[in-house]
Amino acid sequence: VVRRGRRPGEPDTRGSILAAARALFAEAGYARVTIRRIASVAGVDPALVHHYFGTKEELFANAVDLPFSPAEAVGRVLAGGAAGMGERLAQLFFTVWEAPESREPLIAQLRQAMVDPEAPFPFAEFVSGALLPRAVPHLSVPNPSLRLELAAAHLVGVAILRYVARLEPMASLPAERLVAEVGPRIQTYLEDLPPS
Amino acid sequence: VVRRGRRPGEPDTRGSILAAARALFAEAGYARVTIRRIASVAGVDPALVHHYFGTKEELFANAVDLPFSPAEAVGRVLAGGAAGMGERLAQLFFTVWEAPESREPLIAQLRQAMVDPEAPFPFAEFVSGALLPRAVPHLSVPNPSLRLELAAAHLVGVAILRYVARLEPMASLPAERLVAEVGPRIQTYLEDLPPS
Repeated sequence: VVRRGRRPGEPDTRGSILAAARALFAEAGYARVTIRRIASVAGVDPALVHHYFGTKEELFANAVDLPFSPAEAVGRVLAGGAAGMGERLAQLFFTVWEAPESREPLIAQLRQAMVDPEAPFPFAEFVSGALLPRAVPHLSVPNPSLRLELAAAHLVGVAILRYVARLEPMASLPAERLVAEVGPRIQTYLEDLPPS
Repeated sequence: VVRRGRRPGEPDTRGSILAAARALFAEAGYARVTIRRIASVAGVDPALVHHYFGTKEELFANAVDLPFSPAEAVGRVLAGGAAGMGERLAQLFFTVWEAPESREPLIAQLRQAMVDPEAPFPFAEFVSGALLPRAVPHLSVPNPSLRLELAAAHLVGVAILRYVARLEPMASLPAERLVAEVGPRIQTYLEDLPPS
């Protein structure tokens, strides 16, 4: 019997899955895209998607060239609870923005979302829908979802002024100094502000 | 003698100056536009621009429908020095964004600036070039310009998520609750963070 097409597990199966994932996430955002749909577009069995990439989160991370594994990164941010979480979150956030291969598509998505608020913004959906909610049970402040949203807003504002507007002195500040400045302020959303 | 055109001081002189100012600020940003140039485009004497609007700042505020006078507003923010300045800054910032007549042109400028970083962004120039530098001498933190820029970044991020992305719960939060949450965090940039 002559086999047609590629067998499951051939080198390019992984590439076809990634290409399908990239296209679908860009078209429909993060939340509404399923592994089943990605498998169908790639022409493979959904089990093979799980085999290569594990969860949808890990597949997303690979598709958009995130410079870390979400499962590991979230684990690190949450480890130790609220104490120091602001700095760990800022660190993770700027890791994504400092790497050109994840920064460039992010800026493109951000521009698209600014011009058309209905445009899919898969990265924002991924962060606000999949990552941030996991921090909620670790926080003992009132209204933790709002607090996380305000913390995210701060990070987004810095990203826009630093990487898009390239405002000085912020644009030239070494990333670790930025984390050292912003992390403790993020922290004041995750724990109550110390009295001044 | 039959006079042609309008005499200086006739009702529409003010309107012509405003129209010229609006067009020039939109075209060239804030810093590079002079009163002299505005007067020339409006076809009036520069002294008349000063007569009607006082400073370039006040003219800008009128041209973009800011819901306050910059001189008075800056005076209020600076009064009392660094203590409580974060809340006063946040208050002022959200006053601009809450008023639809100043919010809509701001969103338009922001979109333009995101798509084309070379596009003029008169409001951002006005804030970062004319307003924020006045706070610098009132602060006794290291690197006050960077601190003010990070504070501004936080405010910008909240504005984008609240007014452009309309992210909930932030979008529906009453403005005074927003100021109460964000103001004390802005404050940690203007005074040193209390030890936690």
